[in-house]
Amino acid sequence: MKKLILALPLLLAGGMAQADEGMWQPHQLKQLAKELKAKGLKLDPNKMQNLDQFPMNAIISLGGCTASFVSPQGLVVTNHHCAYGSIQYNSTEENNLLEKGFVAKSLDKELPAAPGSRVYVTESLTNVTDQITGSLDKNLSGDAFYAAVEMNEKRLVAECETNPDYRCSVYSFHGGLEYYLIKQLAIRDVRLVYAPPSSIGKFGGDTDNWMWPRHTGDWSFYRAYVNKDGRPADFSADNVPFEPKAFLKVNADSVQENDFVMVLGYPGRTNRYRTSDEVENNFTWSYPTAKAYREKYIDIIKSVAPKGSDARIKYESTIAGLANYAKNYGSMVESFNKGNMLERKVKMEQDLQAWINASAERKAKYGDAINTLEALIAKGDEHKERDMLLSYLGRNSMMSVSRSLLRLAHEMQKPDAERDQGLQERDMPRMKQGLISVNRRYDAEVDKAVILYFMSEYAKLPASEHVAALDKFFGIENGFDEAKVKAKLDMMHANTQLDEEAVRLAWMNKSVDEFKASDDPYIQFAVAMYEFDKAERDAGKALYGELQRARPAYMQAVIDYKNSLGQPVYADANSSLRISYGSVKGYSPQDGLVATPFTTLEGILAKYIPGDEEFDMPAKQRELIMAKEYGPYKDKKLGTVPVNFLSTLDITGGNSGSPALNGKGELVGLLFDGVYESIIGDWDYDDDYNRSISVSTAYMLWVMQYVDGADNLIKEMQVIRSK
Amino acid sequence: MKKLILALPLLLAGGMAQADEGMWQPHQLKQLAKELKAKGLKLDPNKMQNLDQFPMNAIISLGGCTASFVSPQGLVVTNHHCAYGSIQYNSTEENNLLEKGFVAKSLDKELPAAPGSRVYVTESLTNVTDQITGSLDKNLSGDAFYAAVEMNEKRLVAECETNPDYRCSVYSFHGGLEYYLIKQLAIRDVRLVYAPPSSIGKFGGDTDNWMWPRHTGDWSFYRAYVNKDGRPADFSADNVPFEPKAFLKVNADSVQENDFVMVLGYPGRTNRYRTSDEVENNFTWSYPTAKAYREKYIDIIKSVAPKGSDARIKYESTIAGLANYAKNYGSMVESFNKGNMLERKVKMEQDLQAWINASAERKAKYGDAINTLEALIAKGDEHKERDMLLSYLGRNSMMSVSRSLLRLAHEMQKPDAERDQGLQERDMPRMKQGLISVNRRYDAEVDKAVILYFMSEYAKLPASEHVAALDKFFGIENGFDEAKVKAKLDMMHANTQLDEEAVRLAWMNKSVDEFKASDDPYIQFAVAMYEFDKAERDAGKALYGELQRARPAYMQAVIDYKNSLGQPVYADANSSLRISYGSVKGYSPQDGLVATPFTTLEGILAKYIPGDEEFDMPAKQRELIMAKEYGPYKDKKLGTVPVNFLSTLDITGGNSGSPALNGKGELVGLLFDGVYESIIGDWDYDDDYNRSISVSTAYMLWVMQYVDGADNLIKEMQVIRSK
Repeated sequence: MKKLILALPLLLAGGMAQADEGMWQPHQLKQLAKELKAKGLKLDPNKMQNLDQFPMNAIISLGGCTASFVSPQGLVVTNHHCAYGSIQYNSTEENNLLEKGFVAKSLDKELPAAPGSRVYVTESLTNVTDQITGSLDKNLSGDAFYAAVEMNEKRLVAECETNPDYRCSVYSFHGGLEYYLIKQLAIRDVRLVYAPPSSIGKFGGDTDNWMWPRHTGDWSFYRAYVNKDGRPADFSADNVPFEPKAFLKVNADSVQENDFVMVLGYPGRTNRYRTSDEVENNFTWSYPTAKAYREKYIDIIKSVAPKGSDARIKYESTIAGLANYAKNYGSMVESFNKGNMLERKVKMEQDLQAWINASAERKAKYGDAINTLEALIAKGDEHKERDMLLSYLGRNSMMSVSRSLLRLAHEMQKPDAERDQGLQERDMPRMKQGLISVNRRYDAEVDKAVILYFMSEYAKLPASEHVAALDKFFGIENGFDEAKVKAKLDMMHANTQLDEEAVRLAWMNKSVDEFKASDDPYIQFAVAMYEFDKAERDAGKALYGELQRARPAYMQAVIDYKNSLGQPVYADANSSLRISYGSVKGYSPQDGLVATPFTTLEGILAKYIPGDEEFDMPAKQRELIMAKEYGPYKDKKLGTVPVNFLSTLDITGGNSGSPALNGKGELVGLLFDGVYESIIGDWDYDDDYNRSISVSTAYMLWVMQYVDGADNLIKEMQVIRSK
Repeated sequence: MKKLILALPLLLAGGMAQADEGMWQPHQLKQLAKELKAKGLKLDPNKMQNLDQFPMNAIISLGGCTASFVSPQGLVVTNHHCAYGSIQYNSTEENNLLEKGFVAKSLDKELPAAPGSRVYVTESLTNVTDQITGSLDKNLSGDAFYAAVEMNEKRLVAECETNPDYRCSVYSFHGGLEYYLIKQLAIRDVRLVYAPPSSIGKFGGDTDNWMWPRHTGDWSFYRAYVNKDGRPADFSADNVPFEPKAFLKVNADSVQENDFVMVLGYPGRTNRYRTSDEVENNFTWSYPTAKAYREKYIDIIKSVAPKGSDARIKYESTIAGLANYAKNYGSMVESFNKGNMLERKVKMEQDLQAWINASAERKAKYGDAINTLEALIAKGDEHKERDMLLSYLGRNSMMSVSRSLLRLAHEMQKPDAERDQGLQERDMPRMKQGLISVNRRYDAEVDKAVILYFMSEYAKLPASEHVAALDKFFGIENGFDEAKVKAKLDMMHANTQLDEEAVRLAWMNKSVDEFKASDDPYIQFAVAMYEFDKAERDAGKALYGELQRARPAYMQAVIDYKNSLGQPVYADANSSLRISYGSVKGYSPQDGLVATPFTTLEGILAKYIPGDEEFDMPAKQRELIMAKEYGPYKDKKLGTVPVNFLSTLDITGGNSGSPALNGKGELVGLLFDGVYESIIGDWDYDDDYNRSISVSTAYMLWVMQYVDGADNLIKEMQVIRSK
């Protein structure tokens, strides 16, 4: 990476082909200064790398989503879909906040966020590569390498977390070429302040998900609370609003076409540097297969839990999650089939290999980086059909709960520092919350039907792919017998006590022997599967350990090669804080069609379907739009209020809720989605198709002021107005 | 209508609100002269009303489609979908012209068009209102009025057709307010000259039908032949190409955005002046119901005749026809639900009534025009559920064939002049062709399944709606018994001889008594149904007769009222020659989305799906596009060849194949479709959404020159080139 850093200024002085591609680490910004200034950044890029200064210290992570502080009193804005769990948590049949929306008119009316909700304020990022892999013997076996890396990571994390106010993590960059320790203040008293009704916050529903034109009011507000000493604390009436070191001002004019915008956030995962084998396998097998499984999964839930049933309510978010990625995979396969990513990948690898082969020094240095990596990838795919089936089979609640609990019991036998990540003491509150929330999304009949389907698919695998323990447990060693499996599942769900919260929590503290002695059928299932599960995990760790060495070697070759071509390199997204920048811009999704950069209030009316689950709208909003009551939020050029806007920002999952900022660092929108044609962007950024969707601050403030009556929050924020 | 004609110039001098709405009769053009000039017409609008002059005499009807002469040797260009039957007719499994396309390199290679194909050259239009209704007693009963009008029409037609080279028809305008006698030279030796492969001519298939963006090469070429005396004649090797008095030049540059365009053609039917009751009934009942029946019909065909089967091939065009209108109805219902047409209709009627009521003179003149009309409409809808079911039930081949033949036998008992229209001597050749072609689209199993389904639906109607003869014939007087009906149908199809062409033709000359004595089960069916069928027809005629008086009265009120508001009035489309004009223009189908006016060659590539039924493309075309071989057809602004273009032209079914002309009267495109959002245009023209789709002459010539090698035709035509 050092080579890249040094090389960057020179590179940028040359020609920048793909100007808006890239999720940059904060420390890379100073090297991008010239480009950023030219594009429209007014802030000092050199200062933007400082996490303890504006605007970086106003950007927070919710774990999975991004958010930002928008008042000196710890007011946090994020997406409606990021706060969805908290709105749902506070909803009852009589008082359905999802449906009605919610505005706390004063601090004391604010509601506790869903259990486990956190606000993470990143305070430092430290390059710890030397401490993680610097001293490791290159000849370690895969599992030993994995263990050593894990041990070093855990040690650093434990040291960092001696102050219990913090949550620390080690993130690997470029597949293990570099490691950073990230230290985050973990605020655990988070409260729900304001959410629009779902008919605004989720307008368009699954139909519009990933789509343009879009008209979603995807925002919600939280507030972070700390104790009187200003330190993170559990919920308490005595807690006070957290006072962030900085917060974002809100620009009521939002943006104009071609304006500079940047987004600060925590993008989760991209695959921009995967090999051609990985690309081919994913797009011709994994995605199409997973899409089909997800659609089947949804069909099963819908047939067992019909619309309106209690069971269906429990599974709505499961369905949404399954559908979301089924659509995602579908788009990627579509884009893949239309494009030539694979050809380009193959060519890049050939060129890379030729570049390596052209120099004895490079040959010595990068050796057979590509081949080594490809061999490991092939190894990981050996049982891919079975692995994917088992993963969908195991997604259901009872199988997943019982196996997690037994794994915990095994790990508890070790000293805390030696346990697997995710099962250490520090992870227990989160695991507990997970176990508590099971009943909110579990129904025995659905669980059984899902298992039965995936068991029947599993049964079709060749004998070599069968898991003896699984076959034995369900008595299908000599062939699949649906009635028999069904009867077994009926018995298991009738007799298990894991569907009781207290029982689940009690199992968190039981010994392995107690598991073995239990007559709970799902505990027995976990016990029966344990050896297989453990062997799989161990093999996975060993392979991962080998990849932790192979991929950095490959990435070093890629980086050096790309640098030699004058191409800057950013790391794949890994949930760490990144900055993307670009401009407000439409695109042509198809020959003969142009997506303009803005949608408007009138577009909501045009989509409106009375009483529809996805396209209903509040009567008040409808009346206001019909009366053209735009207030100070009317855009001169559009002649109405902009609702959502498109930009070239390079983003992915995890960026949800990210603030979109103008050149001055003012909030102009909240990023919440990408367009259908850009879903493949996780693998391949395309200037012509990569567009992100943000909700404009003009629309947000218009709804807050005229529809939802959240005037108190507008007053609390610092709103910049030109009119 | 006279009032309107006189009023028009004044009206146009005022403000023209809906400039591009209107399908104008030729004689109206001179009153539109100023507007046409301002828009970009270079031709003399006063001369354009002359049917025997350019460009009107270059415009021809194919009966259902429009076409135009494009060479002095009778070369005719129309849509691929208009010539589809002729291409299909000349296709065999070994030599599939639909798939491969066809170019006759010389006259002797040209192929006979499908039997019954005609080229109709309109030679005169005469206002015959006085001769049709001028002398009729206002107190005639409905059926007497109907009979009198029919008699007068037939008399005029017979007089006109004393020269057998001509086909004459009387068209009513404004629901019977005016009548015109149309005299057309009927050329009956029509030959197929050139058709691109379906992967060009039908590119996009049903998926793209009615849609934008569009990339269809929807053209084909015929040639009209006459005998050596220049008169229409049956096919003969001695015939020679017809020499039209005028033909269109072809402009190779096609059009630019905002260019003036006009379309001359034979639009079939619009409903712009229907009452609010009719609107409501159609959009809330007829269209949704018919859509569901059509979708079911298609499902049945597809399940009985699986893809690839011989039966399926026979039903492809039936499926396409059913699907086409299912989609059409769906769009109309969608647009209706989003828009406010009904409210506007209701308001217009209230305003009209208020305007009438405000003057004693108007009250006396228009009386209760609205109420009378509405009462008649309600009467026609009394049995609408049954009527629609019976019409779908009767669409199948055997029921329709047998009943038509029996009806013919009854009519043959009368002197020719007294027979029902469509069953006179002059109609026999067409009827014969219809009977011959039955086997091309008939399969017993499909027919039976369709009948069975609609019988089962019919059986659910209340007893009052049942037809005793039908119930008795199928033995379901005491309740529907599917097995029984199925057995009856099996027997009928096993024993009928109507599935033989010779037998069908023989029945054209048999007496009613022979029908009654026949043991052919489908003949017996027709006999059983005859009394009911006749009563229905008679009642229909009587109602129609009443409507023939009521609607003109209503329309006179509407016209006078609209004139009083300064609004010009054109008549609803009625398959007579019309001119629409407008400009090349995109539109916004949705907030946040813009349809640009052109698609390009590159868009074909983007849609290309190898081997797909709808989105495959010729390899040669693909290579040319990838190599950017645009030749002289490259548009400067687009940087490539325009494929299809959008314009504001007001068109409907029947306009297919119509030439789109520039201001000089040069051919710039062939109109072939409207966009999805404009389907409701048959009822309601909306400036924002009404867009027609034409294939550009640049694309047509590019394919002819580079892909299909139709250079001989390019040479034959007079092509205007700027480069």
